[in-house]
Amino acid sequence: MSLTLWSMPSSGNSYKARLLLAHLGRAYTHIACEAGSEALARAKAEGNAPLGKLPVLRTEAGELLPESNAILWYLGRGTDWVPEEPVAQARTLAWMFFEQNQHEPVIAVRASLRCYPERAAQATPERMAALLEAGHGVLGVMEAALARADWFGGTRPSIADISLFAYTHTAEARGGFEMARFPAVTAWCGRMAALPGHVALDHLP
Amino acid sequence: MSLTLWSMPSSGNSYKARLLLAHLGRAYTHIACEAGSEALARAKAEGNAPLGKLPVLRTEAGELLPESNAILWYLGRGTDWVPEEPVAQARTLAWMFFEQNQHEPVIAVRASLRCYPERAAQATPERMAALLEAGHGVLGVMEAALARADWFGGTRPSIADISLFAYTHTAEARGGFEMARFPAVTAWCGRMAALPGHVALDHLP
Repeated sequence: MSLTLWSMPSSGNSYKARLLLAHLGRAYTHIACEAGSEALARAKAEGNAPLGKLPVLRTEAGELLPESNAILWYLGRGTDWVPEEPVAQARTLAWMFFEQNQHEPVIAVRASLRCYPERAAQATPERMAALLEAGHGVLGVMEAALARADWFGGTRPSIADISLFAYTHTAEARGGFEMARFPAVTAWCGRMAALPGHVALDHLP
Repeated sequence: MSLTLWSMPSSGNSYKARLLLAHLGRAYTHIACEAGSEALARAKAEGNAPLGKLPVLRTEAGELLPESNAILWYLGRGTDWVPEEPVAQARTLAWMFFEQNQHEPVIAVRASLRCYPERAAQATPERMAALLEAGHGVLGVMEAALARADWFGGTRPSIADISLFAYTHTAEARGGFEMARFPAVTAWCGRMAALPGHVALDHLP
């Protein structure tokens, strides 16, 4: 059975998995399931989205794995993308939990409220203002961390960098956040995009 | 230097770390930092809350580690609380990312809006109703998983079970969720509380 990824091409969570697969040079079958598509309905009906969300990875042995950051862990384990040293490894995961608890619910959610017409009714001025302020707070935490190290994984890029990059590099274009206020984050996005093996979100098939 | 934990005694995120430390029988220095306390202000001023939040663990070597689930990983790694097999390990982390992205922002947030008087003004009827519905959805995902296995880690309790237990076991008392609708989740809470080494939240010093 080939390594298979069900993903939503426009989603940052799905991009995480595809970006790491590109860096690792791993071959895989990609099943594109955009919101509202027949492919997404089929994936759910056939039990391939155990938590109701994408991306989902199916291993060569046929095991299903949900959650973008858990997929990064599974694919990255034993490679240069996951530090071996226990504290560095736990700090890498710490940034990924931060990403799911503090970053994604603000930066990705504000972008989705601006970009998906079906969500426009939920984009009240109060909510958008609160998300803007919270997002600038999150980007400020990242800015402070990048004043001390080039990468969230420490001395070299890790799955934490891939996790945080997914929604950060489109935070201004999609989310309306003011990236000029965060020069270290902007420079780190540039370093990520300059890595050999990098593939831009809109250059993926 | 002794293993040290800065934690907020009333917080589920802090309870996760203390519960695993109890199960592991690890000695540690506990610095209680309740919301608004001088101890919390001191922890922040002295740089011991790198992401501005608690819990934070300081290792014997003096390294600071934030994020409750990353602390569970660090402490649990190499013990029976973290599966070794790659897919089981990644699935354990998947539940912990789910906990931070789907569970905590709903179940813990609704509880905090009910229990902390300073948050009462944010507890509008619309918000409380939306959180109630979302929380029942999250508990439904857990109920479905527990129909297939006794533990979120698979065949034995793992750090995913500790992570999810922290805010689930108080979901009715603090959050107002209807646990009678989720018998498998209720039974799992009972199994967690019956484990040797278990310490109840309000029995911690």
